[in-house]
Amino acid sequence: MASFSVPAGDRGLAFGDGIFRTLSVRNGRALNWSWHYRRLRADCETLRLPIPDERTLVGEIALVAPASAIVKITVTRGVAGRGYGIPDGGGGSRIVAAHPVAAYHPALARDGVIVRRCELVLSQQPRLAGAKTLNRLENVLARSEWSEPTIAEGLLGDADGHVIEGTMSNVFVVRQGVVDTPDLSRSGVVGAQRERVRELLQLAAGVECRVRDITWADVEQADEVFLTNSIIGAWPVASLGEQRWKPGPVTRRVQALIAEGDASP
Amino acid sequence: MASFSVPAGDRGLAFGDGIFRTLSVRNGRALNWSWHYRRLRADCETLRLPIPDERTLVGEIALVAPASAIVKITVTRGVAGRGYGIPDGGGGSRIVAAHPVAAYHPALARDGVIVRRCELVLSQQPRLAGAKTLNRLENVLARSEWSEPTIAEGLLGDADGHVIEGTMSNVFVVRQGVVDTPDLSRSGVVGAQRERVRELLQLAAGVECRVRDITWADVEQADEVFLTNSIIGAWPVASLGEQRWKPGPVTRRVQALIAEGDASP
Repeated sequence: MASFSVPAGDRGLAFGDGIFRTLSVRNGRALNWSWHYRRLRADCETLRLPIPDERTLVGEIALVAPASAIVKITVTRGVAGRGYGIPDGGGGSRIVAAHPVAAYHPALARDGVIVRRCELVLSQQPRLAGAKTLNRLENVLARSEWSEPTIAEGLLGDADGHVIEGTMSNVFVVRQGVVDTPDLSRSGVVGAQRERVRELLQLAAGVECRVRDITWADVEQADEVFLTNSIIGAWPVASLGEQRWKPGPVTRRVQALIAEGDASP
Repeated sequence: MASFSVPAGDRGLAFGDGIFRTLSVRNGRALNWSWHYRRLRADCETLRLPIPDERTLVGEIALVAPASAIVKITVTRGVAGRGYGIPDGGGGSRIVAAHPVAAYHPALARDGVIVRRCELVLSQQPRLAGAKTLNRLENVLARSEWSEPTIAEGLLGDADGHVIEGTMSNVFVVRQGVVDTPDLSRSGVVGAQRERVRELLQLAAGVECRVRDITWADVEQADEVFLTNSIIGAWPVASLGEQRWKPGPVTRRVQALIAEGDASP
């Protein structure tokens, strides 16, 4: 059930001991739900959290978002005493909350976005990488590096010189028709939209999408760069530092495939 | 004021966007308070959180813990909308909660504790290292590596082969009268008790305590190893893997200095 407060002793607050997903609900339908639930389940497994029942979650989403909204699902280990040890048989807790639909200007998806390279260097923790846990201070610090409203996103890299993700998005680079997206096995968050785009590229567009280490030079040399998340869909990157791009055919195809999927049940 | 719940939209829960301290209150007095407040202030500065007023905090501690208790102070950035960006002029929120005094068996401080080496390797994030933030999933994962009640603590290292800390404690190694404690500028949490012990060693015992990189071999070759936090005081390490130690003179001196400080106003 939707809730307005959580107990002060919840481990989600105490340690960030939990995970979350953010998704778009349009006319009562949770877009890309199958990937959201798959990622939620995977992230619960990473933290060995009880996995919420899918039908229960779907019912709760319908309850808090009968029309259109952004819905955030948070799963925590629930209340326990002090100390890091995981208590036996903890039931966990769950928050399903609706927020107003984000009003991004259509020009962002049409003309592309201005992106900066963040100074913060992401840490590497293979035991947590990929999961959208409640430990998100790196994203908070990175997002606080700029306040210019013209800059839509910041790109983050790791200490090995690899590009990992945006503060709130995943990144794809296109070169000579091949699409690459960063390996997220040491840092970063696997977005549900990233997984869907990988699937769409392969199944619907017959385009290979490789998951591999991507350097800043790879980004510089790309023909197209685009960002994805469940709220923005796909944004072409128009500039990063000195680099400029025009929205390219692969990005447009991805946008069309996402729009198509979002429109059909 | 003490509170039983926090709003579901608090950024402490959403992102672990906050910090905490855990301290002992004995007969209405917060032990080692000056170091706790100094560390709390430093950690708020790391995250650019509003710093709670010291007298207000002291009053709140007295309210929730009039006699003896463990008090946990949590400071978060408070409620804000979705998204990682830090809102302007957010007031932050604060939880001051009392828990029952922990009942550790006196044999642990007397004879020493059995410690294991954790498999989890701590990540490195200089921008957050040292601060006791609400992003503590590494500690949760590390503490879940064992369930044997005979094992009191797990030691954690980083990917460079350095020993950093225990899951809930700081570590000191003694060799030929010199005391070392790990550099926590890339990983780990600076405990208030660690800072106090460093100060006590220098001022009261005239013993040099260096902060530097410590390898697992340094620990193996140590004459004494001990662990500190604000609840346990100082525990001698009796064993780590194949290694065995008897509580040594420096550890005993540290325990006596802590007890002396805790007993005097």
